[in-house]
Formats: sequence, structure tokens, C-alpha cells
Amino acid sequence: MTTNITDLTSIRDEIVDEIPDALSVSRVTFEGPRLIIYTETPRKFAERGDIIGHLASTFRKRITIRPTAESRLSPDDARSRILDIVPDDAGITNIEFYPDTGEVLLEAEKPGMAIGRRASTLQEITEDVGWTPEVLRTPPIESSTVANVRSFLTQERAERQELLEDIGKRIYRTPSQDTEWVRVTTLGCCREVGRASFILSTPETRVLIDCGDKPGAEGEVPYLQVPEANPIADLDAVVLTHAHLDHSALLPLLFKYGYDGPIYTTAPTRDLMGLLQLDYLDVAVKEGRVAPYESEMVREALKHTITLDYGDVTDIAPDIKLTLHNAGHILGSAVAHFHIGDGLYNVVFSGDIHYRDTRLFNGASNDFPRVETLFMESTYGQDGDYQTDQEDSERRLYELISETHDKGGKVVVPSFAVGRSQEMMLVLEEGMREGTIPTMPIYLDGMIREATAIHTAYPEFLRDGLKQRILHEDDNPFLADQFQQVDGGEEMREDIASGEPCIILSTSGMVTGGPIMSWLELLAPDPKNTLVFVGYQADGTLGRQIQSGQREITLDKGRGGADRVELRFDVESVSGFSGHSDRNGLENFVRSMNPRPEEILCVHGDERATDQLSSALYRKLNLRTVAPRNLETFRLV
Amino acid sequence: MTTNITDLTSIRDEIVDEIPDALSVSRVTFEGPRLIIYTETPRKFAERGDIIGHLASTFRKRITIRPTAESRLSPDDARSRILDIVPDDAGITNIEFYPDTGEVLLEAEKPGMAIGRRASTLQEITEDVGWTPEVLRTPPIESSTVANVRSFLTQERAERQELLEDIGKRIYRTPSQDTEWVRVTTLGCCREVGRASFILSTPETRVLIDCGDKPGAEGEVPYLQVPEANPIADLDAVVLTHAHLDHSALLPLLFKYGYDGPIYTTAPTRDLMGLLQLDYLDVAVKEGRVAPYESEMVREALKHTITLDYGDVTDIAPDIKLTLHNAGHILGSAVAHFHIGDGLYNVVFSGDIHYRDTRLFNGASNDFPRVETLFMESTYGQDGDYQTDQEDSERRLYELISETHDKGGKVVVPSFAVGRSQEMMLVLEEGMREGTIPTMPIYLDGMIREATAIHTAYPEFLRDGLKQRILHEDDNPFLADQFQQVDGGEEMREDIASGEPCIILSTSGMVTGGPIMSWLELLAPDPKNTLVFVGYQADGTLGRQIQSGQREITLDKGRGGADRVELRFDVESVSGFSGHSDRNGLENFVRSMNPRPEEILCVHGDERATDQLSSALYRKLNLRTVAPRNLETFRLV
Repeated sequence: MTTNITDLTSIRDEIVDEIPDALSVSRVTFEGPRLIIYTETPRKFAERGDIIGHLASTFRKRITIRPTAESRLSPDDARSRILDIVPDDAGITNIEFYPDTGEVLLEAEKPGMAIGRRASTLQEITEDVGWTPEVLRTPPIESSTVANVRSFLTQERAERQELLEDIGKRIYRTPSQDTEWVRVTTLGCCREVGRASFILSTPETRVLIDCGDKPGAEGEVPYLQVPEANPIADLDAVVLTHAHLDHSALLPLLFKYGYDGPIYTTAPTRDLMGLLQLDYLDVAVKEGRVAPYESEMVREALKHTITLDYGDVTDIAPDIKLTLHNAGHILGSAVAHFHIGDGLYNVVFSGDIHYRDTRLFNGASNDFPRVETLFMESTYGQDGDYQTDQEDSERRLYELISETHDKGGKVVVPSFAVGRSQEMMLVLEEGMREGTIPTMPIYLDGMIREATAIHTAYPEFLRDGLKQRILHEDDNPFLADQFQQVDGGEEMREDIASGEPCIILSTSGMVTGGPIMSWLELLAPDPKNTLVFVGYQADGTLGRQIQSGQREITLDKGRGGADRVELRFDVESVSGFSGHSDRNGLENFVRSMNPRPEEILCVHGDERATDQLSSALYRKLNLRTVAPRNLETFRLV
Repeated sequence: MTTNITDLTSIRDEIVDEIPDALSVSRVTFEGPRLIIYTETPRKFAERGDIIGHLASTFRKRITIRPTAESRLSPDDARSRILDIVPDDAGITNIEFYPDTGEVLLEAEKPGMAIGRRASTLQEITEDVGWTPEVLRTPPIESSTVANVRSFLTQERAERQELLEDIGKRIYRTPSQDTEWVRVTTLGCCREVGRASFILSTPETRVLIDCGDKPGAEGEVPYLQVPEANPIADLDAVVLTHAHLDHSALLPLLFKYGYDGPIYTTAPTRDLMGLLQLDYLDVAVKEGRVAPYESEMVREALKHTITLDYGDVTDIAPDIKLTLHNAGHILGSAVAHFHIGDGLYNVVFSGDIHYRDTRLFNGASNDFPRVETLFMESTYGQDGDYQTDQEDSERRLYELISETHDKGGKVVVPSFAVGRSQEMMLVLEEGMREGTIPTMPIYLDGMIREATAIHTAYPEFLRDGLKQRILHEDDNPFLADQFQQVDGGEEMREDIASGEPCIILSTSGMVTGGPIMSWLELLAPDPKNTLVFVGYQADGTLGRQIQSGQREITLDKGRGGADRVELRFDVESVSGFSGHSDRNGLENFVRSMNPRPEEILCVHGDERATDQLSSALYRKLNLRTVAPRNLETFRLV
């Protein structure tokens, strides 16, 4: 593929022609899909807010104005002016200046107050100090992941500028071929759950969507070696729908294979993906496997990530625009909509979806300007894959907790760190606040606290009401007093286990390792305690064995020994808290989709699930449907 | 793809271990899929005929024995010994010695007599002179194509040896990947007629099947630019089903793109393909188009061709065996059967087929050891695409000829040079021999005579009875006295047109140019004459316009002038002589196929034809059927 470098000098000249003489343009560059204008007159640009909108619609690009060095106050002077301008209530915790780009980063506990009504405070800052302010939320719960990602990106800022300029030039290259066809190749997750990966291609462009592993089958990775995916270095873009490892685990591998382009995803997905990928490497080492890449590659992936908000229509190639929409599955999860070739075709990849609202998230968005083809997840696509209503599930969970409490016992819930734990926390917090269950300590063990912290750093991605509570009413349920981190190791666990009634949320969610193993050993002997499963237990996991009735298990003690543990506590299962829509939800997602697609490809489900969902959608909605296999290519137009 | 060079030295050592000490092995090499053993004791190998079979089954390769230089008589001595050994009746016309390989090529009018019963004469030659004899038929009608191909291959012999050795090493490389999947990508001829082209791929291997143009749509060539086809230089093999340009026209282009591997096809297809490709370039030049490649590339294609007989099971890659079967469509046309991954999967590409016997050819073969998937032509796949029985068609043609003769008129038949003309010649020859129509001259104009000559060079590829007549009864119908070549230009045509009743077969078959234009001008004014269409007239051709009733046409006179010609002769159409099966024939091909495939992909037909044939086969035979689109990839296993 030839890349015709877009001529930035001629773009600069055209911009100068479009704006009043009083506004200067010293330099123009790209930051990924954005066009950046450096000016010696940033204050005048700020005064004439309409100019940017005019330029954006003229050049059909997102535009950012940055001040040149000459036009800015010194960092010290600027810092004190900014602290004067921003109200104290905003709770500024950090100010960083980036002389190379003229940006100033403000971290604030209440970003809204730092931004001001209609960005009036930001405009005032620009006019006053010359620097371009950017505001980030100070996470209300300290998150090492968020802090590490931010500090890493700061440190890599210079290199990232270069990268982003190259990416921008590539996006806006003059296309060398007409978009006469559109194809999708399946590299994984067809007639199976795991290793999600697709190639969307036109004669001009190739985009990779997701690149996950297959849980429980380490060798089975996406078919990256086939010609359609190669050369990997020449892919135009990578899009990640959400952070779960069956969608994200192998992304860093692409950089090992020479890829040097962007990963488009949401900001919370970027942070969660880093957390989960590093954990993926840790687990590989612990289990004595050779990790497919080094942690350095996780950093490469981070460095190449360009974050998008839901609803941003973004050029990612000369003939492809990407828009991410809320998927309702986990924090930052997205449905990816691709608009291809000026009006030619639209294809949507659902990623993993939850169609109804949950406590944490709004239900998946299914409203698009246009869509002809939908690639649709089918995890619970089998005939009869119905989940209990969440309300009924919560009632049952509350009952189990109250009964256990009344007996003087403890409730332990094996729980996935990302998503299900936070949903549980909301259920439990409400139950206690409203008196449905007795107030007692809720202990969080494993990665749950860190994952929760990341959720609180991005309240915009949470359900409307919840966001409101966190943002504007100072009523963050995740900060409730009951929640306590287990940070004192085995000793603390023993104290808790021998103490008063309480609830424990602990990873791993399928009882395959992690602190839940200690909790089993500590709590299993006492018939007053209760183990409650709230998530899917896959075949072959200890969780599934216990759920199926096994009452004696062997725990590896790590030092060569092994303990046989008799499970004397109650074992209960409460469905209805899944991050995936059940069969009804999947059908409803399509039935109410606006507009209805012409064709649906059912993926991300086992053979029966994809087959049965495909047949049902064909029968009930009279749509063209297919349950593809891996390694097939479908011509869309 | 890494190519592990097969170690020929170790093969040599293993061979030495397998054979008696009296037999020497000086060197071992590959010629494409064949293993060649050079020996100083060729006579002893010839005496011990069983040894070769033993080695072939031990090494699972076809094996040829060649004498080293030391073990051979001088060419002069050998020549006179050979002429002594071979009976005079064999009619030897040429003897060529190739010192580099130790082969001696005998061209004989009766190859069977030169070969002897059970190859006894050949064995005698080997034992006597040391050289390895190979016998070719001297065409009973002189063919410049056959002569040119043979002389070109002789001249390129040294380079070809090297090529074949490299190809052999590649075929027998140690595979670097397991054949865990099999895929087919459609590069053309889906929901259309023309630009036949497919990629058959496994993790280890990629094979291209056909590479044709699209008649009447010069720009529409196979999608060779997509990743699945690239790098073209790395393809393992190319297979050509038959010589028609919609299957063969773009093959030479592959060599321009760096391909340096083999083309597998039958010997007559090789010769016809060269003839038609050079004509394709001529036509491009005449029509003022830029030819996609130079004639040099046609020679490259010839140089890289490895010919196979029907039924030869041939290794073409570490995990693929190819067998060509008779397709009944034109001379040398083949159904291609691929056996993939030791017992894993079998896929058949029908190419173009005629399922019932015609006068020229046995009906298409549909008997295979195994077959799971069939790619099936659908030219006449529409509901209602039924042709008249050939017997009825012949009766009708005979009537028209007799009536025209009785009126004192002439019959002119626009006819394709390859296939339909020879079928017509057989119909007419029999009609005259049996007195059904009056005996009169049959003039052949255009490329028909040359194409006929190529047919007579390969009687083994003709229908059993016809082959018998040509080979053993000295009763070659193509040599009948009535057939006369029009080799005197316009003057001769004028003489014929003003002479006695006669029949004229002339190209082009769709009245789009060539000598048929002169015949129109000469014969159209006389109402006693008759024009008979016996082949398909495509949309947009002059043939179709005349067939549809147009009675005044404009003939470009070439020197800037144009004549309006009123068509006063009778215009008739007789169907039933097609080289393609009609809808019944296509269904019967599948219905009687042994074994029945599990899945059929209907290609090589317009959208209605492929759709309707696909539905019909699904409904009637309960098979999985698809009408694919171009640029799709199907996973077979």
C-alpha cells in the first residue's frame, strides 16, 4: 500500500486563507485523527470560538488550537494564574506543563468545576496564560493503574507526538484505490467463545478488530498468520471493543510483529487492558508457560492507544470512519460502528453486550445512522439460554445473605475483578442502605479494589443515575464505609474468618486460583457459612465442580503439600448478574435496532449457540443470518 | 513460508540401500513431481523392471531412470540402432538426442508401434543404446502450434531442467505446518461468467486454479491483488482446467508478477493455451488496447507447464495431490481433484463440463475416490436452461443443409475455432458418409484448421470410438476429402461464394470479427443461402443482433469506409451443440456423482443461474449448497 503523505504546508496555507488576518498560524500538524494548529495568537482564537467550528466543517477534521512557545506565560506564572482562575472547590491535585505542545494538564477532583459552564473556565485559562488546558479526573479511589498509565504517557509524550503525526498523515493520505468492495475475515471466536479477532478490509485499508486469547485453551490464538492479516505492520488501525482478555490479550503481540499504528478504544478500556494484560503475563509465568510477549509490549500498546468517547465519529483511514457506542458489558465496553467509503456501507461489531440497563451501566446502544451488516455476539444464544431477572436475583441474594447473617455465618462470593464485582458492590450497598439486609463489613480481596478504583476514575462511562451520584451529589456508593480492602494477607483473612458475620467478594471468579482459595479453606468447614456463585462457571474449573455438587476438594498448598478440604458450608448459585445479554436480550437488541441490519453474522458463542441464534433471528425477523466459521471471508459489498 | 530443501544425497543413499549391488546410482534429482535416478547401468535397470515399481512405492514418488553419459552409445550409433529396432510402420519422422538428460525423443506417426506391446520396444531401445526413449505423436495434420511448442521446449531444455529440479525440491520440502485447515478464496467467476480464478490454501500451501479474463469486459480481471493471492511469487502451484481464455488468459501475467513455479494441466491444454493467449494479445493490439503482458510471458507460461494425463495422481505440494479427470468440454479439458493432507479432505473443481458424451469427447468423469466439496460450473444453471438433444439438433441441421443444397445455395456456420468446429466437422462428415446429406465441399476458414490439427495430435483425449478410428483403423474423419482450408484469401472466398453448393465453417463464433465478416458480405445478398448459428451468441455481439432478427447490418471495410449489407439469406439457429451441460446435465453430473459431495459451491454462471442451480441442488438432493460471491473465503475443514 502506498502512502501519499498529505501535504501539511498546503493545509496550513488553506487555513490561513479561511481565517481573519489577525489570527496567526505558525504550524499545522496531526495528532492521530486530529488536526493541530499552532498559533502565536491563542487568545484571539479563544475569543473567536466560532472559527474552530468553521475550520472543522471546512476541512472535515477535528481541530485543536495550541499556543506556540512565544505566546505563553512561563510555567510558574501560569501555574499561579490558573490556581487563581479555577475555583478551589474543583480540588486541583496536580498541574503539569508540556512545553513541546503548549498543553497544561490539570488533575481535579471535580473536573466539571475546572472546565466551567460551556468550557468558560478553560477559555479563560487559555486567554490568560496562553497554554491549552486539558482536565483529567483525580480518581476518588486511588488507582495505581490509572496513575501508572498517566505517568507512562507523560514520560512517552515526545515519542507519542511523532507517532501521532505519522498516524495522522496515514489516515489522511490520498487513497490509491476506489472502495469497490468491503470484506470481513474471521480470525477467531466463530463457533467458539474466545480469541475474538476480525479483519475489516477494503482495497485501500485493513483494520483489525480485537485480538483476544481463548480462556482454557492457551495454544488457540487468533489466526494472525493468514495472508489477510499480513503484513501486520501494514494494518491501518486496530480497534478494541473492551478490555476482557478474550478480546485484548494478544494486542501487544502485534507490536512484536512490527505493527506501529494506533489502537482505538475508550479511555477506561485502555487502562483496564493494561491491568489485565500484565496480569495475563503474570499468570503465564506462574503457570510455567512461555508468555507470548514481554511486558514492554504492553507499554507499546498503551503508547499507541488513541482514546475515543462514545459517539465521536473519527476518521481512522481514508475510507473508514469509526464510532464507538456504549455496549453495557463492562466499563468502557463498546459496540464498534464502521462507516465505509463515503456512504457506501456500514458494519457494526457488537463486541460483548448487555442490552438491558444494569446497576452499573446503561444498556447497549443499538441506534445508528445506518447499518447494513451486524457481527453479533452469541454467548447466550442457545434456545433456552434465559437468565433470571436481575430483580429476582437480587431478592434471592438478599435472602441468602440475611439467612447466613442470622445464623452468624459469613457469605463468600467468588467474583471477576472487572464488572461483576462492582455490580455486586452496588447491590450490597443498596441492600444495606435501604435496610433489606443487615449492615455488616464487605471485604474486597484480590484485584477488585483496583478495578473499582478505575471505575470511579471514569464515572462518565457508568449508568446515568450512578454517574450523577458520583459526579454531582458527592454520594459515591463505592466509597461506602462497609467496603474494606483485604490488605493484611493471610493473617487478616484468618481474623475475618474467625470474626463477626460479613460478606467477602474475592477473585478469581471461577475459583481457579487467587485469594478465593484461602477463603475456601477458611470458610468451608463451618456449615453456618455460605458460598454464592453469581457468575458463569466454565467447564473444567473448580468453580464448576463445586457448583455441580462436589463436596470434597484438594487445595494445593504451594509448598508441595496439598490439603483435602471438606466443603461443609452451603453452596448456592444466583444467576441474573451476567455481563452478557441472555437469548431474549440478544433478540431484543436486534428487534429494536434502528435501523434493522440486512444481514447478521452470529459469532462469539459455541456451535449450538451461534447456530440456534442464527436460525432464530432468520425465522423471527426474516433477516439474512449466518454462523460463520473461523478463517472465512465475507464480502459485504 | 520457509522451504526446507529436501536432501537429495540422503535420498540417493536410501535408494542404494534398496536395490541390488549390481545396479548403480550415480545421481538423483527431481523433475517437478518426478524423482529421476541417473545410472551407469541403465540396461540392468531395464532388465529388472520390477525395481522401479518397488522404489516408487517405497518412496511414494513417480520414478524415472536415466542413463549417465558413459553408459550410452554415441548419438549417431544410437540413431541407426533405433531405426533398426523400431518397425518401419511406426513412421518415425524425427529423432532428437538430449545429452544433458540422456533422453532420446522419437516423433512417430504411430506412437503405439514405436512403444511396442507393454513398452517392449522402448525397453529394447534402452537396453541396446543406453538412452531413455520418449515417444511423441507426429500430428497427422501438420500443426504449427504443436511444432512451435515442441521446438520451444527443446530449446529451453537446459533451463527447464533447473526449474523442474527446484519445483521438485519445493514439492517435497518438509512441511513447516500441520494441515489443520483448508480454505478456498474466490478471485473471480462468482455470480458471473468469466475470470475464473480460485485460491486453494492450507497453512502450508497455496494453489491457484485458473486465471481467466472476462469476455466483453476487458477491465474485469481476477482479483489477484488481494492478500490471499500474495505474494504471487510464493504460490506453490497453478492448475489450469482448460484452455479457453476465460480460464487461461491471465496466466502469463503471473510470471510478470514474479511467479516462477509450475502450471499443471494436460498436454493439449498447454498447446491450445499458447495458441489462444497469443491470439488474445493480437486482438488486444488490433483493438488498440494495452495488452496486460508481452508474448514473452506466454513463453514463460509454456516453459513452466508440467503436463499430466487424466488419472495421474501427482504430488504438487507437501500436503496436496492433484488428479485431473476428463471434463468433456473441449480438448484436454479437466475436472481437477485435490486430495489434501493425508486423508484429511478432498475438493473438486469442475471447470467447464459436458456430462453426456458428444461426438468428440467422452462425458465428464464424476467418479472419485473421495470428495467432500465440489466447486461446480453453472453456465446453464437457470431453471429452464434446457438444450435440444444433440440427435434432434443434428437432424435439424441436416434438413437445413439439404434444403439449401437443393435450392443451389450455400450454408455458412459461424463457429468457435476450438471445440464446436471439430464437433461440426464430425457431424458433417458422418452426414455425408452415410448419405444423410449430399456430399459437397466443407470449407474451413480462420483458426479452425490449426485447432483441428491440435486435436489430431492428441487422439488419446478424444472419445473412445473416435480415438480408435484415428489410432488403429487409419480412418481419421478430420482428414476426409471434403474438408478444405480457405488459404487463398479474399479471392478464394469470392470463388467459393460464386461456385457450387457447399458448407463453410468460419470464425469468429459470435460474428465479432475475423473471416466470417467476409462471408456475410459475400453470401447475405442471395436468398438461396443459409446462415446457421450453432453456438451461444452473447449479448452485445453482432451474432446476437442477427439471431434476434436484425436484417440490415453495417460492415466496417477497414479502410475508413463502411458497407450497409442487407441480409437476404435465411438465418437459422440450432441449439444442442454446446460444450456445456444444460441444467439437466449439471443436475445429473451431481446426482450420479460417486461419492456425492457434502457441499457444492455453484460458480461460473450469472447471478440467476448460480442461485437457481444452488437452490435446485439443495432442494432435490438435500446437499449444502452456496452461490458464492467474488472475494469470499470458505473454510472447508
